[in-house]
Amino acid sequence: MAIITTVDDPADPRLDDYRDLTTADRRPDRPGGRGLVIAEGVVVVRRLLESPYPVRSLLGVPRRIEELSVDLAPLDVPAYAASADTMATTVGFHLNRGVLAVADRAAPVDAASLARTARVLAVCEGVNDHENLGSLFRNAAALGVDGILLGPRCADPLYRRSVRVSMGHVLRVPFAHLDEPWPDSLDLLRESGLTVAALTPSGTPLPAGLAGSRVALLLGAEGPGLTDAALAAADVRVGIPMAPGVDSLNVATAAAVAFHAVAASVL
Amino acid sequence: MAIITTVDDPADPRLDDYRDLTTADRRPDRPGGRGLVIAEGVVVVRRLLESPYPVRSLLGVPRRIEELSVDLAPLDVPAYAASADTMATTVGFHLNRGVLAVADRAAPVDAASLARTARVLAVCEGVNDHENLGSLFRNAAALGVDGILLGPRCADPLYRRSVRVSMGHVLRVPFAHLDEPWPDSLDLLRESGLTVAALTPSGTPLPAGLAGSRVALLLGAEGPGLTDAALAAADVRVGIPMAPGVDSLNVATAAAVAFHAVAASVL
Repeated sequence: MAIITTVDDPADPRLDDYRDLTTADRRPDRPGGRGLVIAEGVVVVRRLLESPYPVRSLLGVPRRIEELSVDLAPLDVPAYAASADTMATTVGFHLNRGVLAVADRAAPVDAASLARTARVLAVCEGVNDHENLGSLFRNAAALGVDGILLGPRCADPLYRRSVRVSMGHVLRVPFAHLDEPWPDSLDLLRESGLTVAALTPSGTPLPAGLAGSRVALLLGAEGPGLTDAALAAADVRVGIPMAPGVDSLNVATAAAVAFHAVAASVL
Repeated sequence: MAIITTVDDPADPRLDDYRDLTTADRRPDRPGGRGLVIAEGVVVVRRLLESPYPVRSLLGVPRRIEELSVDLAPLDVPAYAASADTMATTVGFHLNRGVLAVADRAAPVDAASLARTARVLAVCEGVNDHENLGSLFRNAAALGVDGILLGPRCADPLYRRSVRVSMGHVLRVPFAHLDEPWPDSLDLLRESGLTVAALTPSGTPLPAGLAGSRVALLLGAEGPGLTDAALAAADVRVGIPMAPGVDSLNVATAAAVAFHAVAASVL
């Protein structure tokens, strides 16, 4: 059962995980980063509590902690109630959402085991924008994608901004890093019976005969798109018909359209 | 031919359209608002120059004005070149994109004439978030939607943030306000031969037999969705199959999926 403790002193060491988030949390996955997963807001904190990530504590204004009381009841997690001012001083900025939770990272999922069981996977190359990656996870969760594989030069899905934009779905959709050498590591997917389909403007219009197949959908960054090497390593190239004179869609939006075209049949 | 003038004084009255944008521009479409259309960045300024909106002037750092010289050559529009500091002092914040343009609003499009010719229209009810509305225009432009109708409680698509997020596509995709009484005004669309299809989670999975039809796709705000009155006024209800336990997609993302399902066949 969670114990709720009121904290008045922003310097209280029990709040150290929350201190100066804008600077301390900038690169959580890099050397020197704290490596923590931070959830903001009732909805996302609830998803963190339901996730496999080991939650360290919560910090929130009393009203938000109260809102989470049913979720907290079965858990052995310290919850700190503080005023909005104490929270702002600790964190370094004013939090609209009124509650935060901190967890340790969980052991990474294995790409091979994801590939064996998934009906639809997304594989990202160079999706290096935290918001786009967060949106992509949200769309994957909504549209029945079973997992996300991160190739080279992707952002960290567990960075605070990705977690927020994903509405916490980075904590629910399994993801794994696809090992070097890239793109040879895509062979792993093919060997598991997945069709590797590269999403690119000139590809065959979706669903391109893929509906009902097990598919690994290869997605590049908005702007540069997929590298030539990644395109060459795909089994097929698929596309979204675009009106003339329009630059591409946002990568997470394009992914949603493709997820729907490929995955709707498996929901 | 555009005349390029260097301006050093942030108080120069020729820059008045650009002054204190964050406050002066907050409600451009409301009484007391300046009613100007403001484009930011080379890509969006270029779209403004190609649009029917009467451009009043440009303000940019010399490098960005230079980048637009081919676009400016045939136009009779004053272009003011200034340092980044002069621009920041005038505008009230530092501009990453280095160039702005200002235009007057154009006469609104007529909903009835849009309805007569469009193959696919989007009709928004309560899409009151400027970024969502901007994204929705971007997605409409990319996916072959012929126009957007704004029902009650929608944001202003010509607000600076909508313009930016749309990548300038609010300046290309025709839009009109659908008059009161709402939702009776949807009859206008039906009378023009369009099928009014409400997008709602419980609707028949897209494309729901609509591919190839002329369709007015009715979209509500993320969160509350469409009102009961709007749902009741639709001819059909269509939906995007969602994974269990996931809240809805972002409204612009859901719209993109639906646009693709309905409009891809007409591109």
